[in-house]
Amino acid sequence: MVAVEELWPASLAESWDTVGPVVGRPERKVKRIMFAVDPTLEVVADAVARGTDLLITHHPLLLRPVNSVAATGFKGEAVHLLIESGCALLTAHTNADSAIGGVSDVLADIFGLTDTQPLAPSKDGLPEEGIGRVGMLPEPLQLHEFASRVFSAMPAVAGGVRVAGERAGIVRKVAVCGGAGDSLFDAVRAAEADVYVTADLRHHPASEAREAALNGKPYLIDVSHFASEWLWLPTAAESLKNVLQDLGHEVEVGVSAINTDPWDFILTP
Amino acid sequence: MVAVEELWPASLAESWDTVGPVVGRPERKVKRIMFAVDPTLEVVADAVARGTDLLITHHPLLLRPVNSVAATGFKGEAVHLLIESGCALLTAHTNADSAIGGVSDVLADIFGLTDTQPLAPSKDGLPEEGIGRVGMLPEPLQLHEFASRVFSAMPAVAGGVRVAGERAGIVRKVAVCGGAGDSLFDAVRAAEADVYVTADLRHHPASEAREAALNGKPYLIDVSHFASEWLWLPTAAESLKNVLQDLGHEVEVGVSAINTDPWDFILTP
Amino acid sequence: MVAVEELWPASLAESWDTVGPVVGRPERKVKRIMFAVDPTLEVVADAVARGTDLLITHHPLLLRPVNSVAATGFKGEAVHLLIESGCALLTAHTNADSAIGGVSDVLADIFGLTDTQPLAPSKDGLPEEGIGRVGMLPEPLQLHEFASRVFSAMPAVAGGVRVAGERAGIVRKVAVCGGAGDSLFDAVRAAEADVYVTADLRHHPASEAREAALNGKPYLIDVSHFASEWLWLPTAAESLKNVLQDLGHEVEVGVSAINTDPWDFILTP
Amino acid sequence: MVAVEELWPASLAESWDTVGPVVGRPERKVKRIMFAVDPTLEVVADAVARGTDLLITHHPLLLRPVNSVAATGFKGEAVHLLIESGCALLTAHTNADSAIGGVSDVLADIFGLTDTQPLAPSKDGLPEEGIGRVGMLPEPLQLHEFASRVFSAMPAVAGGVRVAGERAGIVRKVAVCGGAGDSLFDAVRAAEADVYVTADLRHHPASEAREAALNGKPYLIDVSHFASEWLWLPTAAESLKNVLQDLGHEVEVGVSAINTDPWDFILTP
Amino acid sequence: MVAVEELWPASLAESWDTVGPVVGRPERKVKRIMFAVDPTLEVVADAVARGTDLLITHHPLLLRPVNSVAATGFKGEAVHLLIESGCALLTAHTNADSAIGGVSDVLADIFGLTDTQPLAPSKDGLPEEGIGRVGMLPEPLQLHEFASRVFSAMPAVAGGVRVAGERAGIVRKVAVCGGAGDSLFDAVRAAEADVYVTADLRHHPASEAREAALNGKPYLIDVSHFASEWLWLPTAAESLKNVLQDLGHEVEVGVSAINTDPWDFILTP
Amino acid sequence: MVAVEELWPASLAESWDTVGPVVGRPERKVKRIMFAVDPTLEVVADAVARGTDLLITHHPLLLRPVNSVAATGFKGEAVHLLIESGCALLTAHTNADSAIGGVSDVLADIFGLTDTQPLAPSKDGLPEEGIGRVGMLPEPLQLHEFASRVFSAMPAVAGGVRVAGERAGIVRKVAVCGGAGDSLFDAVRAAEADVYVTADLRHHPASEAREAALNGKPYLIDVSHFASEWLWLPTAAESLKNVLQDLGHEVEVGVSAINTDPWDFILTP
Repeated sequence: MVAVEELWPASLAESWDTVGPVVGRPERKVKRIMFAVDPTLEVVADAVARGTDLLITHHPLLLRPVNSVAATGFKGEAVHLLIESGCALLTAHTNADSAIGGVSDVLADIFGLTDTQPLAPSKDGLPEEGIGRVGMLPEPLQLHEFASRVFSAMPAVAGGVRVAGERAGIVRKVAVCGGAGDSLFDAVRAAEADVYVTADLRHHPASEAREAALNGKPYLIDVSHFASEWLWLPTAAESLKNVLQDLGHEVEVGVSAINTDPWDFILTP
Repeated sequence: MVAVEELWPASLAESWDTVGPVVGRPERKVKRIMFAVDPTLEVVADAVARGTDLLITHHPLLLRPVNSVAATGFKGEAVHLLIESGCALLTAHTNADSAIGGVSDVLADIFGLTDTQPLAPSKDGLPEEGIGRVGMLPEPLQLHEFASRVFSAMPAVAGGVRVAGERAGIVRKVAVCGGAGDSLFDAVRAAEADVYVTADLRHHPASEAREAALNGKPYLIDVSHFASEWLWLPTAAESLKNVLQDLGHEVEVGVSAINTDPWDFILTP
Repeated sequence: MVAVEELWPASLAESWDTVGPVVGRPERKVKRIMFAVDPTLEVVADAVARGTDLLITHHPLLLRPVNSVAATGFKGEAVHLLIESGCALLTAHTNADSAIGGVSDVLADIFGLTDTQPLAPSKDGLPEEGIGRVGMLPEPLQLHEFASRVFSAMPAVAGGVRVAGERAGIVRKVAVCGGAGDSLFDAVRAAEADVYVTADLRHHPASEAREAALNGKPYLIDVSHFASEWLWLPTAAESLKNVLQDLGHEVEVGVSAINTDPWDFILTP
Repeated sequence: MVAVEELWPASLAESWDTVGPVVGRPERKVKRIMFAVDPTLEVVADAVARGTDLLITHHPLLLRPVNSVAATGFKGEAVHLLIESGCALLTAHTNADSAIGGVSDVLADIFGLTDTQPLAPSKDGLPEEGIGRVGMLPEPLQLHEFASRVFSAMPAVAGGVRVAGERAGIVRKVAVCGGAGDSLFDAVRAAEADVYVTADLRHHPASEAREAALNGKPYLIDVSHFASEWLWLPTAAESLKNVLQDLGHEVEVGVSAINTDPWDFILTP
Repeated sequence: MVAVEELWPASLAESWDTVGPVVGRPERKVKRIMFAVDPTLEVVADAVARGTDLLITHHPLLLRPVNSVAATGFKGEAVHLLIESGCALLTAHTNADSAIGGVSDVLADIFGLTDTQPLAPSKDGLPEEGIGRVGMLPEPLQLHEFASRVFSAMPAVAGGVRVAGERAGIVRKVAVCGGAGDSLFDAVRAAEADVYVTADLRHHPASEAREAALNGKPYLIDVSHFASEWLWLPTAAESLKNVLQDLGHEVEVGVSAINTDPWDFILTP
Repeated sequence: MVAVEELWPASLAESWDTVGPVVGRPERKVKRIMFAVDPTLEVVADAVARGTDLLITHHPLLLRPVNSVAATGFKGEAVHLLIESGCALLTAHTNADSAIGGVSDVLADIFGLTDTQPLAPSKDGLPEEGIGRVGMLPEPLQLHEFASRVFSAMPAVAGGVRVAGERAGIVRKVAVCGGAGDSLFDAVRAAEADVYVTADLRHHPASEAREAALNGKPYLIDVSHFASEWLWLPTAAESLKNVLQDLGHEVEVGVSAINTDPWDFILTP
């Protein structure tokens, strides 16, 4: 599909990643498109029930390659459900992370960052493309104020938003990376960011980053992996709709309402 | 499917191989089963046209694992055709080579061998199980006589049967391996076979085997890969039908009539 | 040190792990021992300030081996602080996870489990030794009731306790693994546990475990890595004191009061 | 030998290949040179019997390196025979495949191709050098007509020439690769050749190529590995003779009459 | 330390090497510096006894990285001794081999070589930098004369200087490599050196080099590894003192008097 | 050759090693056998000049396997010289190190050791077989006395015998390993030997062994690699002669008089 390649070129994908069409017949006409973060069975069933012809997800269904798609597991079940219903599936993963208007760019926009640059510039892309973004807040904020803005900007998930650092510490320079960003700590330190917003931080990377911090910075804000990437969906849907209209196609484009964050509730002190 | 596992246990498969269900819903009832060597598009379309519920092939559709089953290639096209038509696909490959009553056993039977043993015994199976077989002809034959028997026993394919050795040489001890058997030359020599019947022998393995031959033996007979494995299909179909009847299932079991040997004609001196 | 080897034998450590003495002179007399989860600079400074002769931590300081201990980084800084103050450092990590009375055993005890067995039995140890434990609650509980018990048993940390599953779902069989347990999902499913309590679960492993769940089980409870291992410290201190007294040594043994969970506060819906 | 390096430079050899002198004293004078495809014992004995000083073969004797040349196997036997008779051995393998006037070029010439280009251009050579060639027939032919020409151009071997495709299909653009060419299918498809002539095609590569074919093309013609490379010998002998004459050396150059195709007879339908 | 980096830049180190600070607090003032070849316990104890603040050695203490610096081995003992005494340790190894004024340059100077060039030029350095040197003697010498000069230039060690070659053979072009130089034989031959002076030559490399010699050259002179590198120490100490004085620091710089060649006596014919 | 296999079974060779016949026709009669340490050109030429039919060397000619034996290098030159002269070559390397009556056993005998055991027992051999030996001197000696005995027992070579340790230190338990033994230091320490006699010790292994020594032991004695293995030749020749006579063969067996130690002279303090 030409429009998808224009928006999120496959050349921006990381080498370990798999993007592009996963299920579907290329010659079939598409009338309804739905965006989602994860191709879970619940998301697929909902898309099919709504008459979707093309489901575009951020996470790949078959990242680890398979020798069988028999419906003896949830991945084969999804393949059967999709093909039986004539719904195609397409992945826009690390290519959508890196692109202009991609996941990281949308996060930076929502936090109001200016003068943004990639944390890890893409090797084969434009200078503005790459994983993560770092930029400046329009005005300095205390850490707890900034964390509240992050919390408000995200769709509500059970796990909330965890913060490491002093509540009253001042933050001005912000690094963000949608999804799991624990491989970018060196880039975050090199950029001298005051705070790093990402997801899926475990004890050891987070502790080592805190021990290595100078004057306590960068602070860390750990958000929901799902929520950080969900934010990209409405923008992506809007962009795709516009590109398709420019190409003369009349297509409905929507965003899945299913929350695929795995956590259902939390107990806190 | 219990019956398949009983006949050709997955534990007999080689470590690099992938066997078992590839497409289909395990809960669906099966009324018509078809056997074939290769899951080519022609075989799949024919099976679907005949109302087949389960296609059992010797060669895997997805031996190299895939990240996508989109119908942009012939493998994805086969997956779509099968799922859209409600036809399951199952592979019985190196497990069916090794089993008692498997590909190698059927070949040995057709050539009338006695006192047969595996060329490469299966590590986790019975002593009678393993890749290839070696056994004795009931009476000594000249090489050209034995080659004629091999030729007559096989389904006719364009490429015929190639022979290396003296026409009048005497053969008594015969090694066979359905499909490509060029990794078993050491076992063939250790068994002191007079002739080795297998498929897909290329110039270098065949030449080195001829150079290393003692008194010109083992002679070599190179047959069609497809034909050598096709011989197993009727036996396999019969066995499966019997097992299913014993379990109280009334199922039609057939063999595909499509020739999937790739060659269409030959020019010879 | 003989007493440490008796309690947590090095042979129980995983192959990638490094346990035993890290800093210190073996001939020096030990009067005060302190236990902690992490050898952070704050923990080391506090231990030194309290006149500690031997600091025993669960996490290794030098898991990734080093070519330099210059005080140009926080690990070298810790080495200098310890040697300058005459305080030794010793690690009891995956050996303490696996041992009887080790981290996993203590968690199982605190949750009141009976008939406990290791999730992944130790290859070179007793049958009761190994990573993780699975056992039965004395009576069935609803998931939210059990989660509350887990929450109450843990030292309070900012991130709290996250739960995936239905509040009213019934749990009887419980799997636990102190620290990061995402490599044990196969063992948890094989054990048919109703719920799995562990730490550091990220989006993809947790989501895939939820998709693969049968009837929604196992439920997941994600606790603080630090908190799950802290629970072992008082028991470990008590055991070591007893062993040393039996050997005729009069030694003070304490537990560090420093919270080394990296998170300082949380925002929840 | 300078002349050999000029004609078939070692820099054109593939990285896994071994070319150049294998046996012989560099200072010894050469009066008689013989070319052959394979250094079999029969070829070596014949060369020695004819008083050959230098045997040049296409296939290496010691492609897999050896720790012993004792005459306990056929390779050591060949080394002894050569050294005892004062006959040198030299290999021109993938360098002779790639060179201008090399194996692939000779095949293209014999089939009358024009506008030829390499299928896989050599990295370190001229633009006209590389493995395989693709070019145009002077006029369109039906597949069976073209196959007849291929058959007539080759030295007669038992196995003949196998063809996959429709007899009456039209071919104009032809890809050729002497020896085993199954690694070049991607290049053949990219070149949009109507037919691919090569050797040693086994069931799986041939079948997958037929399944992936668009409108049935490229058709496949499988010839004898030996025969496809033998065609190069007279040209090579002529070229070497000329170069040596230009250098003022009076040398006899011949081609071995031994057929080293391993197959002796064939049975066809 | 800026002065050290200026003299022996870390970028000149080989990829497998580890150079720079190993022990010590960067903020501590340095008054006394001592140079040595090896950080043996005897060298460290002597340095500490003399009030040294910084010990600079050619060989790394922790070339193989460690998970523990407990004083249960001689490396941990050295770390404890250094930190307890407030003495830092710094390594200048293959970077000091390669640099201008480094180990190889000093050897070339002492032997009076002119027109020197590196044997293996440094990839990231100046053209004059790299491992080993090759240059011309001011006048031709007999091998035994040149060996006597080498012997006289070296600090006396038990093992002396071993020579392979004819006593009266003429040498003019000399290759040198401080420390173990057996990986540079190809470069020595390419440079057409008459003699190669290096250390730690074992039977097989030395024998193969002698067998491969043309007209018996290059001759070999095997010196003490320690002695060949010790020669660099006075020059290094002088250079560092000068750089520090230029920067306005008044520092004592000395050379350790401890002989760390492992051999104590020799018996010769 | 049956006699060789009986004396030094190939199964005792290390996995990286290559032993057995290297050059020669197995059917040729053998009248004169010569033993040598190294198959240098000088040794081969001397053997050929003396009418030798079989040269048995300790070191392999083709340890690194080769793709060519052209006489463009010294190894190919040796192959040509041997085959042209009808002299076979056979290697008895690590199998001869390990065997009873092998290199290590002969060294232990010459030093008068009793109660000898292998340093590294052979996995597939008898308990008395393996690399190296450790045993007791009949009476305690001072280190310099023992070194003198070692020196006197060895054939004279230029490099002499180097010793690390106190002249007057007492040695009783002695470890020996013919050839390069620096991989056996752990076994030497575990055996609590007072002194270790081996060859080819370089600076770093020797220094680290000295640093790790307890009370200065084990002392080290570094002998000529060639000399340590030459000692085995007369015993080996005698044993082979006896075995052959028992088999009824009348064969001359001798030892090469060529010294293949690479060093020609030494300068010492």
